[in-house]
Amino acid sequence: MSRTSPISGDSRPIGVFDSGVGGLTVLRAIHERLPKERLIYLGDTARVPYGTKSRETVIRYAVESTIFLTSRNIKALVIACNTSTAYALDRMKKTFNLPVIGVIEPGVKQALLKTVRNRIGVIGTAGTVASGAYQRELRARRPDARVTAQACPLFVALAEEGWSTGRIAEETARRYLLPLRKRRLDTLVLGCTHYPLLKSTIRKVMGPGVLLVDSAEAVAEEVESVLGDKQLLAEGSGKGSLEIFATDVGGAFRRVAEKFLGRPLREVKRARI
Amino acid sequence: MSRTSPISGDSRPIGVFDSGVGGLTVLRAIHERLPKERLIYLGDTARVPYGTKSRETVIRYAVESTIFLTSRNIKALVIACNTSTAYALDRMKKTFNLPVIGVIEPGVKQALLKTVRNRIGVIGTAGTVASGAYQRELRARRPDARVTAQACPLFVALAEEGWSTGRIAEETARRYLLPLRKRRLDTLVLGCTHYPLLKSTIRKVMGPGVLLVDSAEAVAEEVESVLGDKQLLAEGSGKGSLEIFATDVGGAFRRVAEKFLGRPLREVKRARI
Repeated sequence: MSRTSPISGDSRPIGVFDSGVGGLTVLRAIHERLPKERLIYLGDTARVPYGTKSRETVIRYAVESTIFLTSRNIKALVIACNTSTAYALDRMKKTFNLPVIGVIEPGVKQALLKTVRNRIGVIGTAGTVASGAYQRELRARRPDARVTAQACPLFVALAEEGWSTGRIAEETARRYLLPLRKRRLDTLVLGCTHYPLLKSTIRKVMGPGVLLVDSAEAVAEEVESVLGDKQLLAEGSGKGSLEIFATDVGGAFRRVAEKFLGRPLREVKRARI
Repeated sequence: MSRTSPISGDSRPIGVFDSGVGGLTVLRAIHERLPKERLIYLGDTARVPYGTKSRETVIRYAVESTIFLTSRNIKALVIACNTSTAYALDRMKKTFNLPVIGVIEPGVKQALLKTVRNRIGVIGTAGTVASGAYQRELRARRPDARVTAQACPLFVALAEEGWSTGRIAEETARRYLLPLRKRRLDTLVLGCTHYPLLKSTIRKVMGPGVLLVDSAEAVAEEVESVLGDKQLLAEGSGKGSLEIFATDVGGAFRRVAEKFLGRPLREVKRARI
């Protein structure tokens, strides 16, 4: 975990891919935690969303994104997309010779560290909740956990529209989350990369008794831990950087991306994969 | 226009395609207006949404959907998708030997019939509004029309979630539509196939002084008119039918589709195109 242990730093970039803009919250969390790292992001905006596509297709897309990123000499790969993680994580680990970090396991591990009474909630897109990936992973690691999952489809639209706070966001959050409150959870996993934008609204509705697990932050911690163990962290006084690619850069991409990233974007490059 | 003029009826089906479930509001309107017709619907749910895809890709998808439908011996084609209509209508008309009806022109024609003061609003997805397709068509047909367009991205999510009325829908509609109310429109075109589900909420916010043009109903009228002119309407005492295909039938498709269609669905068939 310590950033000073490696004998020599590794200045190669970390690759991050997602089906669209959501993974930018993960990119942001990694950048904030590891500001010396060079990060390359690929959003497959031309083919978003993945949630409705078949396993084979999602795996093929993941391979294509990974090939694009490995051609840029990355030292590690982060799959910042729930659907891709659920379907393609194992395949990517087997196929490519580099550390691969998905977006599900870090949130699950952190939830199990935080929970006191083993009453854990998970919120995500309809696809993620229906896939059961979080529920399975939680129960596999702690069989006596009581897990409640709730799909919150409107949260993605609210986050992309920039309506993360205010009356509409709160009313929507109440409608989705009040059934969860009744289950008397002590921990809630934000199982969608869009949801960190709604964290303050979700916290307001769930109340102070429920700990929120931001899976973007959990992934950033995991990246630090994995790279630290393998002595792959960047060293020295150099500053990190962000390089953003998307398969389609039209429309509102830049405006939405800046919201997710929390900073202005100098440049978005078009990737052909 | 008259249903009795044809000398002989044509019992072949009408084909309707869309990128997803939205076009089911068009299917429903055609079925209600022309209950004797056999209708075949294809929703390209595996590749939805089209709004972020390139012109070439959208045209290719339209060709594939049309080939699928023509193989089922259709007598006319309805493109129940705004993006496909904007990009592919002309190409489909040139390529295929059958009447082709898009979703933009009928709404525009009806708006121009209804408006008194030529102050017309258009609401749609971000993609539709940015494409300028409605604005161009309105101004081409009536150069002195004052057209105001407004994207309402959350409406699609609200319609698919089944939250078409109630506080969240109304608050959202107010936020999008109050700027339009200030423009003192007399006519508002619902330029997205999802929006008929929100009609009562939109009407409540816009008030009784604004006429709403439901483009699904406008398309149904146009289908009747075109088939009537060509003596292609179904005749006799036979009942019509609905046959629904989708390229991906997983997840919540059936539940959402039934909401859009306004009736239970007996069967959704998987189409491979």
